Amino acid sequence: MTLTGHSLIAGQSVPGEGKTTFAYNPATNEQLQPAYTLLTEDQLRAATSAAAEAFASFSSLDPETHAAFLDAIADNIEAIGEDLIARAGQETGLPQARLQGERARTTGQLRLFADVVRQGDFRGVRIDPALPDRAPMPRADIRQRQIPLGPVAVFGASNFPFAFSTAGGDTASALAAGCPVVFKAHNAHPGTSELVGHAITKAVKDAGLHPGVFSLIYGPGSSIGQALVADPVIKAVGFTGSQSAGIALMRTAAARPEPIPVYAEMSSLNPVFVFPGALTGDIDALAQQYVAAVTGSSGQLCTSPGLLFAPAGEAGDRLAAAVGRAVAACPGQTMLTAGIANSWNSGTEALSAAANVTVVGTGTPGPTQNAPAPAIYGTEIGNFVSNDVLHAEIFGAASLVIRYSSAEELVEATHRIEGQLTASLQLTEEDYPTVAQLLPVLEQKVGRIIVNGWPTGVEVGHAMVHGGPFPATSDTRTTSVGTLAINRFLRPVAYQNLPQELLPASLQDTNPWRLNRRIDGTVVQADSAMADTGN
Amino acid sequence: MTLTGHSLIAGQSVPGEGKTTFAYNPATNEQLQPAYTLLTEDQLRAATSAAAEAFASFSSLDPETHAAFLDAIADNIEAIGEDLIARAGQETGLPQARLQGERARTTGQLRLFADVVRQGDFRGVRIDPALPDRAPMPRADIRQRQIPLGPVAVFGASNFPFAFSTAGGDTASALAAGCPVVFKAHNAHPGTSELVGHAITKAVKDAGLHPGVFSLIYGPGSSIGQALVADPVIKAVGFTGSQSAGIALMRTAAARPEPIPVYAEMSSLNPVFVFPGALTGDIDALAQQYVAAVTGSSGQLCTSPGLLFAPAGEAGDRLAAAVGRAVAACPGQTMLTAGIANSWNSGTEALSAAANVTVVGTGTPGPTQNAPAPAIYGTEIGNFVSNDVLHAEIFGAASLVIRYSSAEELVEATHRIEGQLTASLQLTEEDYPTVAQLLPVLEQKVGRIIVNGWPTGVEVGHAMVHGGPFPATSDTRTTSVGTLAINRFLRPVAYQNLPQELLPASLQDTNPWRLNRRIDGTVVQADSAMADTGN
Repeated sequence: MTLTGHSLIAGQSVPGEGKTTFAYNPATNEQLQPAYTLLTEDQLRAATSAAAEAFASFSSLDPETHAAFLDAIADNIEAIGEDLIARAGQETGLPQARLQGERARTTGQLRLFADVVRQGDFRGVRIDPALPDRAPMPRADIRQRQIPLGPVAVFGASNFPFAFSTAGGDTASALAAGCPVVFKAHNAHPGTSELVGHAITKAVKDAGLHPGVFSLIYGPGSSIGQALVADPVIKAVGFTGSQSAGIALMRTAAARPEPIPVYAEMSSLNPVFVFPGALTGDIDALAQQYVAAVTGSSGQLCTSPGLLFAPAGEAGDRLAAAVGRAVAACPGQTMLTAGIANSWNSGTEALSAAANVTVVGTGTPGPTQNAPAPAIYGTEIGNFVSNDVLHAEIFGAASLVIRYSSAEELVEATHRIEGQLTASLQLTEEDYPTVAQLLPVLEQKVGRIIVNGWPTGVEVGHAMVHGGPFPATSDTRTTSVGTLAINRFLRPVAYQNLPQELLPASLQDTNPWRLNRRIDGTVVQADSAMADTGN
Repeated sequence: MTLTGHSLIAGQSVPGEGKTTFAYNPATNEQLQPAYTLLTEDQLRAATSAAAEAFASFSSLDPETHAAFLDAIADNIEAIGEDLIARAGQETGLPQARLQGERARTTGQLRLFADVVRQGDFRGVRIDPALPDRAPMPRADIRQRQIPLGPVAVFGASNFPFAFSTAGGDTASALAAGCPVVFKAHNAHPGTSELVGHAITKAVKDAGLHPGVFSLIYGPGSSIGQALVADPVIKAVGFTGSQSAGIALMRTAAARPEPIPVYAEMSSLNPVFVFPGALTGDIDALAQQYVAAVTGSSGQLCTSPGLLFAPAGEAGDRLAAAVGRAVAACPGQTMLTAGIANSWNSGTEALSAAANVTVVGTGTPGPTQNAPAPAIYGTEIGNFVSNDVLHAEIFGAASLVIRYSSAEELVEATHRIEGQLTASLQLTEEDYPTVAQLLPVLEQKVGRIIVNGWPTGVEVGHAMVHGGPFPATSDTRTTSVGTLAINRFLRPVAYQNLPQELLPASLQDTNPWRLNRRIDGTVVQADSAMADTGN
């Protein structure tokens, strides 16, 4: 299809009345057509108003219509075919195989949320039946369900043009919860966003839903984002990006007359802890895996490891040397934008200029623009603990190897780091006692703990947590990946003594949606013999 | 036991080094002994430090030890006997029967959370087993559980000296989640707080727990509360009280280097909607029930109805007249403090001075101090919609009867009100079509909808929601009453590829705690035949 350069507001193609912007191919720094016209704040209101209008009908859809809609988005994205991969490649510099994998993750995620909608446990049905004979006071019939919060603002991320963008995890989980979405495209990949936006809009139309269920907006930098979060219609925010932008949105949301939750996934150093036992194995393989995790997707993953704690001593020296050799063999890959490459340069300059930081190894610059040589630095744990500069995230292919001499030092350093998405542990059985000492501290610092693996490659499943204490995210009670992410957009409502005719379908005695229900505190599964006798 | 007037920090009786304060009997305005010594901010650190130290062991207690500890608190509160009711009566002016009922609710709540701990669903176990043969990439074993956030600050409420105070719902749910609690006593009932604080401290000691699991602190007004919420050790806040105090805590929590969640339950008008069908029944009974709900506990309940929407016309006139007669028969009851009685006087003066507000009826002043005559006012719905003064909560026995002429007016007025804890509907079958029109709007405004009942008398069960959109609470995703309240103090952590020896008990294959588990997205109950084959 031909790209229009327009926003998609409630099914309508709307040219922006503000300035225009272009995407750039980061491999060549060439401008890409067409021009994207940016909305004014006044124009934004059309999207939020339509979302508000769509809420009542969309939030009360029957499960099958609702789930089929999510499936249709996935189908429509696949139907775009190779045009989508090609445009995303031009706009992001990411290689084709990575983009194909990310597209599969994105459509898989939509279909997983369709399953979640069909299965229905997210509705959180709880029924405490009436006890008319209870003394001293009878108990009324009380039923609870989770309802969607309202229209949600979602911000596209630079580093995942599909999986954390237009139809990515935030959009999929918000739509699954029953919340209309106003999506603010990342200006680095507007064409990719438009293609996916049309796929969603078509699904909305084909399902006969209110067109306000989805809007895709292009706007100037952060100002339209702030206006969107401040709009009284919006009831929650999903964001993946920088700490400064995330914190700015948190502040705007907290300062509203009605504060709203912000789910911002912001930054993470993703420390890796190598225990002595792990150095009794194949040190070269360990080094190569680490360097692959650091440099994959040019290091532009939320979970790229920015820190590796390695033992002092001879075996640790061998690991550092192997890391140096491994990274030396790595050419730079195109980064997402010239601005991101510049930030990487500033970050690595600051790190290499810090006292007592050495170079463990560097790769070679890539053949394209914006493809700096990967770089791995080294320091001692005492230096790391005492110098804040060494705790700053460098987005891109850079990492810091930190040498430690004792378990106590590791525990102290772990207390010292900020909240992170992940921590990874390389270990063997001999390390269990040391690891057991570190685990309770780690649990307070991260959302996911990995043994003998690497943090990149986030699985989209039921048990995944892609979250963690601030500043990794704005809300440690949640995850932005996996089926639990739907809970971010729900709130409980109780219904006391409502006649069956007035109860929502999910709470009716006949259980027309075949939901599992917590009856008097005990889960009664829809397919169990008790299901029809519970109430 | 003899009251000491000291804080209880990690099991130690600690005299405050700041000023002193006294409780007053609001029925007589007489000072009560002993003097309560207030902590300085420096002294506060002893409580938060101890809570931090207690966290690791308390958060990993086995279910039975943990649950028995909560049961023991309930037992110890009952063992105080009538001394507790007597002191609470002196400090609050609340009648004995009400206090006995509230004590039973409080101990029942503790035992209910003990059951929740034994049952274990709050641990949120999810297991996605490894799929080593999956193409193109194998899946690692990923397991998720909910862990406690960390030490929690809880603020006692003025109006529930037991159920929303020292061992009230916030404390009970935080302790059940595995979070140590630093409890800031309300200065209006310090003696009651001390008695209950000793009951908790004894349970901590008898169970052999770290003494930092619980501290009870007395401090000057809001300053010590702000210092407590700003303390980096504290990871969440539970509060019940005024909107201004709640919002101040929200701001402090949001401005911390690491923002934390605040669960503040603040204010609610609890509108009641009388539909025409309800006026075909016993109008006098309806009026009496309404007035009883308005005046019970001197109107000092979070859920006292502050608004009643009644139809215009003859039947509505009869209801208003009956309300007037019913309230005329009501003597004032002692309010909690002289300050609260003064605020009630200011609030009712402002309301009665507002344009187009009439007096529907007033009671008589009570025989004690601080026992103003209950008052019910009236106005037209157009006046209500256009005048913000009529939307202000008046804490105490006052309410406003609002006359409406059409369902459309009701819908418009509902859109206009702020977030509330409850809405109550008086109706018969003929009203269903009108009610069905209003319900989706109400769901966006309140946490609980009640049919043919009254909002007071909050049931502590599994399906209860005592929450609602801002400004009823600070966080509409939660409830402060009922078993779902435990979720406020939990966050998910994922464990990828951990050996059994390093997994927490709740996630081990052998399921030693007999927990229900969500395996690959499907709940497998511990007692089912599948439970041991799931993984």
